[in-house]
Amino acid sequence: MAEKLMLHEDRFFDPDPEIRKIARELYKGVKDLPIISPHGHVDPAIFADNQPFPDPAGLVIIPDHYVFRMLYSQGITLESLGIPRIDEKPVETDSRKIWQIFCENFYLFSGTPTGVWLNHEFSIVFGVDEKLNGESAQRVYDQIQEKLQLPAFLPRTMFEHFNIEILTTTDAVTDTLENHKKIKESGWNGKIIPCFRPDGVVNVKTKNWDKNIETLSKVSVIEINSYKNYIKALENRREFFKFMGATSTDQGVLTPYTHQLTDNEAETIFQKALRKKASDEDALLFTAHMLMEMARMSIEDGLVMQIHPGSFRNHNREMFDKFGPDMGCDIPVQTEYTKNLYELLNTFGNDPRLTLIIFTLDESAYSRELAPLASHYPTMKLGPPWWFLDSIEGMTRFREIVTETAGIYNTVGFNDDTRAFPAIPARHDLSRRVDANFLAGLVARHIIDMSDAVRMSRALAYELAKKSYKFE
Amino acid sequence: MAEKLMLHEDRFFDPDPEIRKIARELYKGVKDLPIISPHGHVDPAIFADNQPFPDPAGLVIIPDHYVFRMLYSQGITLESLGIPRIDEKPVETDSRKIWQIFCENFYLFSGTPTGVWLNHEFSIVFGVDEKLNGESAQRVYDQIQEKLQLPAFLPRTMFEHFNIEILTTTDAVTDTLENHKKIKESGWNGKIIPCFRPDGVVNVKTKNWDKNIETLSKVSVIEINSYKNYIKALENRREFFKFMGATSTDQGVLTPYTHQLTDNEAETIFQKALRKKASDEDALLFTAHMLMEMARMSIEDGLVMQIHPGSFRNHNREMFDKFGPDMGCDIPVQTEYTKNLYELLNTFGNDPRLTLIIFTLDESAYSRELAPLASHYPTMKLGPPWWFLDSIEGMTRFREIVTETAGIYNTVGFNDDTRAFPAIPARHDLSRRVDANFLAGLVARHIIDMSDAVRMSRALAYELAKKSYKFE
Amino acid sequence: MAEKLMLHEDRFFDPDPEIRKIARELYKGVKDLPIISPHGHVDPAIFADNQPFPDPAGLVIIPDHYVFRMLYSQGITLESLGIPRIDEKPVETDSRKIWQIFCENFYLFSGTPTGVWLNHEFSIVFGVDEKLNGESAQRVYDQIQEKLQLPAFLPRTMFEHFNIEILTTTDAVTDTLENHKKIKESGWNGKIIPCFRPDGVVNVKTKNWDKNIETLSKVSVIEINSYKNYIKALENRREFFKFMGATSTDQGVLTPYTHQLTDNEAETIFQKALRKKASDEDALLFTAHMLMEMARMSIEDGLVMQIHPGSFRNHNREMFDKFGPDMGCDIPVQTEYTKNLYELLNTFGNDPRLTLIIFTLDESAYSRELAPLASHYPTMKLGPPWWFLDSIEGMTRFREIVTETAGIYNTVGFNDDTRAFPAIPARHDLSRRVDANFLAGLVARHIIDMSDAVRMSRALAYELAKKSYKFE
Repeated sequence: MAEKLMLHEDRFFDPDPEIRKIARELYKGVKDLPIISPHGHVDPAIFADNQPFPDPAGLVIIPDHYVFRMLYSQGITLESLGIPRIDEKPVETDSRKIWQIFCENFYLFSGTPTGVWLNHEFSIVFGVDEKLNGESAQRVYDQIQEKLQLPAFLPRTMFEHFNIEILTTTDAVTDTLENHKKIKESGWNGKIIPCFRPDGVVNVKTKNWDKNIETLSKVSVIEINSYKNYIKALENRREFFKFMGATSTDQGVLTPYTHQLTDNEAETIFQKALRKKASDEDALLFTAHMLMEMARMSIEDGLVMQIHPGSFRNHNREMFDKFGPDMGCDIPVQTEYTKNLYELLNTFGNDPRLTLIIFTLDESAYSRELAPLASHYPTMKLGPPWWFLDSIEGMTRFREIVTETAGIYNTVGFNDDTRAFPAIPARHDLSRRVDANFLAGLVARHIIDMSDAVRMSRALAYELAKKSYKFE
Repeated sequence: MAEKLMLHEDRFFDPDPEIRKIARELYKGVKDLPIISPHGHVDPAIFADNQPFPDPAGLVIIPDHYVFRMLYSQGITLESLGIPRIDEKPVETDSRKIWQIFCENFYLFSGTPTGVWLNHEFSIVFGVDEKLNGESAQRVYDQIQEKLQLPAFLPRTMFEHFNIEILTTTDAVTDTLENHKKIKESGWNGKIIPCFRPDGVVNVKTKNWDKNIETLSKVSVIEINSYKNYIKALENRREFFKFMGATSTDQGVLTPYTHQLTDNEAETIFQKALRKKASDEDALLFTAHMLMEMARMSIEDGLVMQIHPGSFRNHNREMFDKFGPDMGCDIPVQTEYTKNLYELLNTFGNDPRLTLIIFTLDESAYSRELAPLASHYPTMKLGPPWWFLDSIEGMTRFREIVTETAGIYNTVGFNDDTRAFPAIPARHDLSRRVDANFLAGLVARHIIDMSDAVRMSRALAYELAKKSYKFE
Repeated sequence: MAEKLMLHEDRFFDPDPEIRKIARELYKGVKDLPIISPHGHVDPAIFADNQPFPDPAGLVIIPDHYVFRMLYSQGITLESLGIPRIDEKPVETDSRKIWQIFCENFYLFSGTPTGVWLNHEFSIVFGVDEKLNGESAQRVYDQIQEKLQLPAFLPRTMFEHFNIEILTTTDAVTDTLENHKKIKESGWNGKIIPCFRPDGVVNVKTKNWDKNIETLSKVSVIEINSYKNYIKALENRREFFKFMGATSTDQGVLTPYTHQLTDNEAETIFQKALRKKASDEDALLFTAHMLMEMARMSIEDGLVMQIHPGSFRNHNREMFDKFGPDMGCDIPVQTEYTKNLYELLNTFGNDPRLTLIIFTLDESAYSRELAPLASHYPTMKLGPPWWFLDSIEGMTRFREIVTETAGIYNTVGFNDDTRAFPAIPARHDLSRRVDANFLAGLVARHIIDMSDAVRMSRALAYELAKKSYKFE
C-alpha cells in the first residue's frame, strides 16, 4: 500500500498552540524572502551548461555524501550506489537499481535532516505524493525522471524559481573560473559568484600540493620559486576572484591555530615543502601562518574571511584510496579556539576592516569559547551550525546556547552549504522555520516582544547573510 | 501525615496535549514487549540459588552505589549504611536502622533517575502506597519485608513476572560460570547468559593482575608463560563463554586508544608485566593493542564487542582502601574517539563481521565524534546513555543529539546496566516512556509521521537490542 | 512612536498551560523571600558613602562589562562609551551622548539576559514604561535621572527596598576593608560582608605581585621574606576578614590543578618569585599548591572555599593596555576537573569541615565531571551557572544536566555576581522564575510531586545559599 507523503504546513514548529501561532506569523513574514546562499558546493558547470539533470540517482544520491554515508553505515557498498571508483573499476550504472536500494533503505533517514530535506525536495520541487520505500521506488523514479526532462527543471529555471538572489560556489585558488565566465557571458543574470579556497596550496602536506603550486604558478603567471612569489601569486588570484565577483575566502583547517612566522621562517618551510621535505610540524606552522596572512590580505582587499576547522579529513583510508575525498569519511575532532585564535585576534581582531566568520563542528565550544569571543571582538562573527549540526535540533541548540551571550547580531544568518542543488530551497525553508520557532519561543516566554521578533526574524532569514558577506 | 506515593500513568511524557496523546499511543504499543537486557551486573547466583532476598536494605541500598553515593555526598558514612569494609571492621548490621537513614534522606533523590526507579520499584513491584520519609520508614520496611518472604518474590518468579526474555550478566574471563551452569542444569528455562569481561587480565597495572593471570592459566589449562599462550588462553575462554551462551564481550578502559603492537612488542611488555616491571606507558600500549586483538577475535568468533571508556576508577583512594571498587567513586574524564579509534576502525571498521558497540560518559563527543563515526563505519554502533547519563534528560539529549546524524538504526536500543535486580522493569519502563515521548515530539512537529514512529518505537524498545547483540 | 515596555507577569515560564500554572504557584511561594547574595562585585563604598548614583550611564553602562562588551563587538569604541583609559586620554564624558549610543543599540541585547535584566531594572526599579531605542533615549534618561535624585534611590534605601538579607562583596586580601568598617560603624544594619580573594598574592606572575606582597606585609604587619611568613600573613588576613564577617574565600585560577608542594619546594618558588625569576611552570605549581593550602586553612578556620577556574583573563591585549582588567576581554577555556582536583579531593574531600564550591565556564564538564564529583565527595558543592552561563537557558541547562546526577542538594542556590548594584533584584527574580519553571516541568511530567517541588523551590531560592555559605 502506498503511504502518502505530505508536508504539514506547521512542520518543525512546537506543538504548543501559543508558540505555534507566533511561529506561523513570523515564518509567514520571511518565507518568501529571496534566498541568499553565501557558502556552498554547487558545481557552477550546471548553470554554465544548463543541461537537464541526468536521472534521480544522479540528482539525489551520487553527489550527496550525507545520503550515501548513511547507507554505507548499514553495510551497503558505495559501488552498489554507483559512486565512481578512482581505479575506474566497475560500479553500478543502472540508475533504477541504485534508486531501488535507496528507497528500500529510506527509512534509515527517519528523524534526520537529510530525510526532511529530501521529502521537501520530492514533494515541493518534484510533486511526488507518496512516501519512498521499496514498493514505491520505481513509480517515484518515473515521476522525477519525467519532470527532469521538462524545461521548468533546467538548472537556470530552477534557480529563478527558487528565488535565489545570490549563490556562492567554492573554488580552488587555481581554478580559472571558466564556468563563472561562461555564465556571465551567457547574458543570463543569475548571480553566481566564486569563493576563494586556498587549502590545496596552503596545506603543504596535502596530496598534490606540488602540482597545485605548479598550477597556481601557471594561472597567476608568477614563477613560484619563493615564499614571496607564492604570496604574490595568492594576492594575484584574490584580485582575480574579486574581479569575478567573489566577496569571501574560505579555509578548511584541522585546527584554528594561528601564528605569525617571520618571512625567513616562512621561506624556509616553503623551500622545504618544494623539495618535499616539510614535516608535519612545518605544515602545522605554515597553515597557522597562512591564516595570519589571509587575515592581512582580507584587511587589504576586503574579502570576508571564513575558517572551517576541526574536521579530520578522510578518516577511513580504505574508502579514500578507493573513492577519494568528500565521501562521508570526514570526522570531527575536539577544537580549541580561545588559545588558537589568540594571535590572529590580537593582531587583527580590533580592526573594523576585517570580517572573520568562524565555524565549528564542536558544540562544546559554543558557550565556552565561540560566543564569548564573538561578543567581544568586533571582527569576529559566528557561522551557522555546520554539516552534522545543520539540522533542526542542531540549529536550535546553536540559537539557545549562542544567543544569550552573543545576541543574534554577531552571527551571520544561514549558509546552506549544499552539494545537491535542488536541496537549496528545502534547507532555507527549514532554517527559516526553525528560527521562527526559536523566536516564537522567546516571545511566548516574554523574553522579547513581537516587534523584536519580527526584526530578528528578517535579520536571520535574509539581512545578516547579505550584510556579513558584503552583498550590499 | 503519610504522603501518597502514586505513579501517574502519563509520567515522563511532555504535558503538551498533542505530544502526550501520541506518546501514550506509542508507549501502549511497546510497554508489554518482553525485556531484552543485553548488558548488566546482576549476580547470577541469585537465580542459581533462588533464595528470598534478605531484607529491604540488602535489596535496595547495599548493592546499589547509585543510592549510597548520594547519601555519602551529604555526609552520611558508608559504615552507617552497612557497606562492608575490606578490613572487616564493624559496620551497621541493623537493616531497620539503615533503612531509617535512607528514608529520612530519600528527598535527596528528588529529580534523579534513582528516585524515579525506586518509586517504581516500591509502588509497582512491592505495592507500597506511601512516600518514603523518616515517618513512613518502618511501615514501608514491614511491607517490603513481608513481600520478600512470598514465593512470588523469589528471583526466578520475579524474572518471569518481569517478562525478561534474556538477561546478560558481566563476568570476568576467569570466571568458571558455575552459577550459569547451575541455572542451566536446574531445568529452569530463564535465559541468563554471560558476557566476557577481560579487564582484569588486560590491564597489566590492575590490582591482582598477576593473580588473575594465574587463575586464567588454571581455568584455561594453558600455561601462560608467554604472550602467545596468553592470547591462546583468551581465545579458549571466549570459546567457553560462547558455549555457555555469551554473544558479547565488554571492555572497560580509561581511554579508547587503539594501537597494534608487533608480536615482539606485545611479548616484551607481557614479559615485563609478569616480572612486575611494566610501566604506565606499557600498560597503555598493551591495552590499546588488546582492543585490536579483541576486535580480531570478534571477527573470528562473532562475539559482539563493547567498549566502555572514560571512567577514572576509584578516584577516592580512601574509600577504595576501605571498601574496594564499585563504591560510587568512579568519575568520568574527557574522552577522545576520532583519533583513538582510528587504528581499530581503519583495520576492522569496514568488516561486516564485526559489531562494535561504543559507550561514553562524555556527552560532548555525541555530535562531534560518536554520531559521525557510527553513521559512517558499518561496524560501529552507539550504546545507550550510560551510568550518570542513563536518565530522562540524559536519554533525551542522546536521542536529540545523535539521531539527526546517525538515525536510530546505528544505535542499539536500551541497556539497563542494573546491579539491583528488581530495578530492571523500572529502568525499561522509563526508557520506553522516554523514547515514546521523544518520537512523539518528532511526530507532533511533523518531522516523522505516525507509521515511522510506530516502527522506530518497536526498534528502540526491543528489536535493536535483540539484533545488535545477536539474540536472533 | 514610543513602544511600550511591559514586563509580563508570566515571563520566562513555559507557555504550556500546565507547566505555567505550576510555575506560577511555585514562584508565588518564593518571590518575596529575602535575597541572599553570597558572591558578587558591588563596591562597598556606595553603601559606606550612601551618595546618589551619578547618572544613568554611570549607573548602567560604565560599571558593567556585560553591557559595553556587546556594544564593542559591534564596532562601538569604549572611549565613546566613557570607559576610562589607563593613560587618562580623553573619553566621552557627556552622559547623555553615551546614553544615546546605548539606546540606539539596545536592540543588540534582544534575547540576552542583559537585555532582560535591564528591562527589569528600568521597568520595576525606575518605573520606565517605554522601550529603549534612539528615539526614546533622552526621555528615559530624564526619567531615571530624576529618580536617582530622590532619597528612595540612595544605595542603602534601595538595599532595604530590595529586601537583601545579606550581601557579600569580593575583596583583595590586602584590602583593609575600610568601607566595611565604615558601614558597621555607621549604625546602619544592612549586612554587607567581605569575601577573601587572594589571587593578587597567589599567582606569582600576576601584574604587580611584588607590590601586592609588599602591601600584604604592611597590612598584616608581618615581614614577608619567606614562604613561611607569607602563609602566616595569609592566615592573619583570613582571621581579620573573618572578624569582619567574612564566611568565604574565592580564588580565580586558569586551571583547577591542585598539587601539594613540600615546604622546601614552595619556599624555593617563593624566593624565585621575590627575585622576579619565577617561571610559568613555577607559577602553575605555586597556584596548585596554594589551592591545597587554602583548603587546609578552610578546614582550620571554617571559611567556605570557592574556586572559579577556566577564564583566560585579558585575552585582548590592546584593550588590557588601554583600559585594564575586567573589560569584557576574558574568554573561557576548556577546563578539566577530575584529574586536576584529584589531589585536593583525596587530601581533604572526605573531611566534613570543608565546604568547597566549584564553578565552571565549561558546560561540557557538568555531566561528565562536576555532577559526578559533587554527588560523591561530601565537601564538594556546585556553584550556580557563572558569567556567560548566568542566563535563562544557561540555568535551565545546568538544572537539567546536573540535577539527575547530583540532585539539587549538592548545589548552592543562586549567586548574582553583580557589578551594577540595581541589577540584583532583576537577577534574583529571573533565577527564581527559571527554577520555578524547571521544577514545574518536573511536576508536569510527574517526576516529582508538588510537595517535593515546593520544598525544592525554597531551597533553591533561599535556603541552600544561606546554608552553604554558612549564614545560618
